Amino acid sequence: MRGAYQEELASLAAGLMEMSRLVGSAIGRATTALLDADLTLAESVISGDTEVDDLQRDLEDRAIAVLARQQPVATDLRTVVTSLRMSADLERCGDLAAHVAKLARRRYPDRAVPGDLHRTVLEMGQLAQRLVAQAAETLLTLDVEAALRLEQEDDRMDELHRMIFQHLLDDRWQHGVETAVDVTLVGRYYERFADHAVSFARRVVYLVTGEHADEYVPDIEPD
Amino acid sequence: MRGAYQEELASLAAGLMEMSRLVGSAIGRATTALLDADLTLAESVISGDTEVDDLQRDLEDRAIAVLARQQPVATDLRTVVTSLRMSADLERCGDLAAHVAKLARRRYPDRAVPGDLHRTVLEMGQLAQRLVAQAAETLLTLDVEAALRLEQEDDRMDELHRMIFQHLLDDRWQHGVETAVDVTLVGRYYERFADHAVSFARRVVYLVTGEHADEYVPDIEPD
Repeated sequence: MRGAYQEELASLAAGLMEMSRLVGSAIGRATTALLDADLTLAESVISGDTEVDDLQRDLEDRAIAVLARQQPVATDLRTVVTSLRMSADLERCGDLAAHVAKLARRRYPDRAVPGDLHRTVLEMGQLAQRLVAQAAETLLTLDVEAALRLEQEDDRMDELHRMIFQHLLDDRWQHGVETAVDVTLVGRYYERFADHAVSFARRVVYLVTGEHADEYVPDIEPD
Repeated sequence: MRGAYQEELASLAAGLMEMSRLVGSAIGRATTALLDADLTLAESVISGDTEVDDLQRDLEDRAIAVLARQQPVATDLRTVVTSLRMSADLERCGDLAAHVAKLARRRYPDRAVPGDLHRTVLEMGQLAQRLVAQAAETLLTLDVEAALRLEQEDDRMDELHRMIFQHLLDDRWQHGVETAVDVTLVGRYYERFADHAVSFARRVVYLVTGEHADEYVPDIEPD
């Protein structure tokens, strides 16, 4: 019985890893679709989001079944509860990737992002993908320090977001209002990817320590 | 023992009602702050958001404690699990209200929303407030039909959001890029209020029926 139970818990983690892999791929492809005005790729991200949604639904049902049947306590209970929250973060990242792809599709065959912001948005996309992968990694390693470090990496996303705003509000902006609207939304979507990755990692801190990430004070060894 | 347990469950619902009341008020005040460029009101929304965050944290801790101590099943289990998800929706609405208020603050003493969009944004604000109140109401009444109807009311928000976009992309837009950026974000924030209210109501459907809202088929009486 315990064996099956531990397997059920492990399969929740496996489901989260699978979701994070799909979402990471969706972010990467959505970014390429956006920057290259690749309609086929955009469509694949949009239609592929149902797979992420289905995974989340399935994971949620299984988590609730585990709660009902096994009535876990302590770490096991935290594992189940955090998996509910983590899956919500990942599902939302899938939605956001689909939003990016829809932006690309709406402007096709034009590009939604002007050339002078290409590099910034590319870096945002790569950073978002990396943050999601790193967050998922901390769930495997249960590395609290790594989970807390993710918050600092998110600072770079804020910086990139600010660069986009500065560019938009520069008097020399020459791409018109429609592109300004698109770029504003793009900046917002990528910022949200990072927020969700950080939120996911903070859940790992809670899972391991039982303390909320902002209340957790690491033991510091005096040297 | 059962008495205390039922009280714990009831207090989760009471916490959600309190959160929804605070969030509704924050949306209303943020909208006024935005439209009237009222800095004091904006600051009150921004600083008041910690109260919503604290309530959520508290509610979450209590929900997990109930799971650990009482090991609920069936409807009681759904009550606890949905309260976790609902509190996340409300907490996010609090963040969004603070975002609206920060936009107002950033443009103060100017107004972020030009006069010709005043009415549209006012309606969005009132609708968002109403949707949050209605969603919370369905948790009290456990009225599945009312919860499902919320989705239709959300259509009006989409319509208002489209009106904003049409206005932005009209060649006669004369408010410049900075205001276009602000108005794009405003439209996005209000749309998200409505999404979270709908998500909350869908959780009520699940709570009552045990079926996910998009899979729930109401019994229809032949007439």
